[in-house]
Amino acid sequence: MSDAPTPVAILGLGLIGGSLGLAFRALETPPTVRGWDRDSATIATALRVGAISDAAATIASCVAGARLVILAAPVRALHELLAAVAPHLQPGVLVTDVGSTKQEVCAWAAALLPSHAHFLGGHPMAGSERHGIANARADLFKGARYCLTPTTATDPALVTNFQRWVTLLGATPLISSPAEHDNAVAIASHLPFILSTLLMQVAASDPAWERSQQWAATGFRDITRLAGGEPVMHADICLTNNAALGQYLHAAAAEIAAVAGHLDDPAWLNTWFEQARNARASWLQSAASVVPIEPSRGP
Amino acid sequence: MSDAPTPVAILGLGLIGGSLGLAFRALETPPTVRGWDRDSATIATALRVGAISDAAATIASCVAGARLVILAAPVRALHELLAAVAPHLQPGVLVTDVGSTKQEVCAWAAALLPSHAHFLGGHPMAGSERHGIANARADLFKGARYCLTPTTATDPALVTNFQRWVTLLGATPLISSPAEHDNAVAIASHLPFILSTLLMQVAASDPAWERSQQWAATGFRDITRLAGGEPVMHADICLTNNAALGQYLHAAAAEIAAVAGHLDDPAWLNTWFEQARNARASWLQSAASVVPIEPSRGP
Repeated sequence: MSDAPTPVAILGLGLIGGSLGLAFRALETPPTVRGWDRDSATIATALRVGAISDAAATIASCVAGARLVILAAPVRALHELLAAVAPHLQPGVLVTDVGSTKQEVCAWAAALLPSHAHFLGGHPMAGSERHGIANARADLFKGARYCLTPTTATDPALVTNFQRWVTLLGATPLISSPAEHDNAVAIASHLPFILSTLLMQVAASDPAWERSQQWAATGFRDITRLAGGEPVMHADICLTNNAALGQYLHAAAAEIAAVAGHLDDPAWLNTWFEQARNARASWLQSAASVVPIEPSRGP
Repeated sequence: MSDAPTPVAILGLGLIGGSLGLAFRALETPPTVRGWDRDSATIATALRVGAISDAAATIASCVAGARLVILAAPVRALHELLAAVAPHLQPGVLVTDVGSTKQEVCAWAAALLPSHAHFLGGHPMAGSERHGIANARADLFKGARYCLTPTTATDPALVTNFQRWVTLLGATPLISSPAEHDNAVAIASHLPFILSTLLMQVAASDPAWERSQQWAATGFRDITRLAGGEPVMHADICLTNNAALGQYLHAAAAEIAAVAGHLDDPAWLNTWFEQARNARASWLQSAASVVPIEPSRGP
């Protein structure tokens, strides 16, 4: 295998779809990248910035003859997209997605795709609160983790192949079952954006916020950064990962009750803050050994 | 008034005390800065890096003859420090502190200081999770807010004077009562570090964390940054601001219950995430008009 198979079809040309297009087109032997989006202005922009080499007017023409089909839409839009591409897939095609949760998507793919197509769930962990083709970058995946979620039905050779493409994009493959993925991102990614949103909600709904927001500075800015993310993407994630999220929200509520019950207990508080500081230090240390944790990019 | 009064005494030479010393010493007409810390190695470092011009062996000799006395210790250490400086203050001296909460400190000062000394509560909002004299910087306060909390007993001329010094350090004064300050920082600063710590606790106490931490990336890094802060400082803040914090923790628990109850409700979730995104955008806009929100410095 040298570089990616030709042609590649990308359906959905937002931040992730557009960046995948740019990354594929920046390869030493760039594949043809045919692109489709439900918004025609987005297709035009993707063509202009070089994220795709060909614009497709329909889903059928985008997918026709493609050897790799990438579905780059918010999770809940993937059901419709899988159904729409299914009749037009050529035998042996590899279909993947970039959805933030994987159990439901993998189940939909198993139910909707023809048996001559292969599906491998994917999740490049390279999003940001800046979305849309305007923010797409060829190096978005450099240094990022790219999750792959084979099921028991997935051909292992397919996974090996896809890992090579992921590596070509500069990302580090992270392989697990769809269930393990969804549980892990519930704590590593979804509870964080919910707590971030929750803080913003508590602050903004406080009558004193009109004045007290003047006291908010970099700490508040950093911890609410995820609350600036795309509402539909976050809502879709909650809707398709509610079992795992429900459990971690329960654990978060228990922690809030615990700290609220110990606000006058120096020893308990010291231990609580120390444990968290140490746990974070060991996470940072082990994370640094796998993938560099880059500085954040944005306000 | 040209620059700061001489001599200045700084008691406590950590990140904030050390940085104040460096900032004063970097003024066009630098005042004498006499420094004391309970740790003699810290005093030696402060002298070596130029954060103080004179090292004091005792609290009494540090304070003797000073026209400005700055108490730069964690909140709960300020009670003892106020009692210790009280017998040695010269008439007309201005005493200030840098504690993160203000109601208790101002009450202690009123009870412990002699009537010939003036007290004005201060809180430079320029901390970071990096602490100690090793991280002290002359420009730490540039672009930061510096809270001043006069009480009804405070001479207004004193506030005007102190505002000028704050401006000399490059900071923007933010004046309020101690009570308003403590309520505002409870939501702008204290609930954020508690949620940050809470997330780290929920994650690290999950049996799956050993593996799932591999899925944690920049979002997790940013939102747990405050959990890397100094445990004693955070514990002291909780202990001295527990009324306001208790209320906001109650509000946070209610939000968790609300979102947990709507994980299968697309319309509710969309509205919730949109409201938070919009509230954050307007805060960022109004914050930018007062003080630039700098990029974070760190892992």
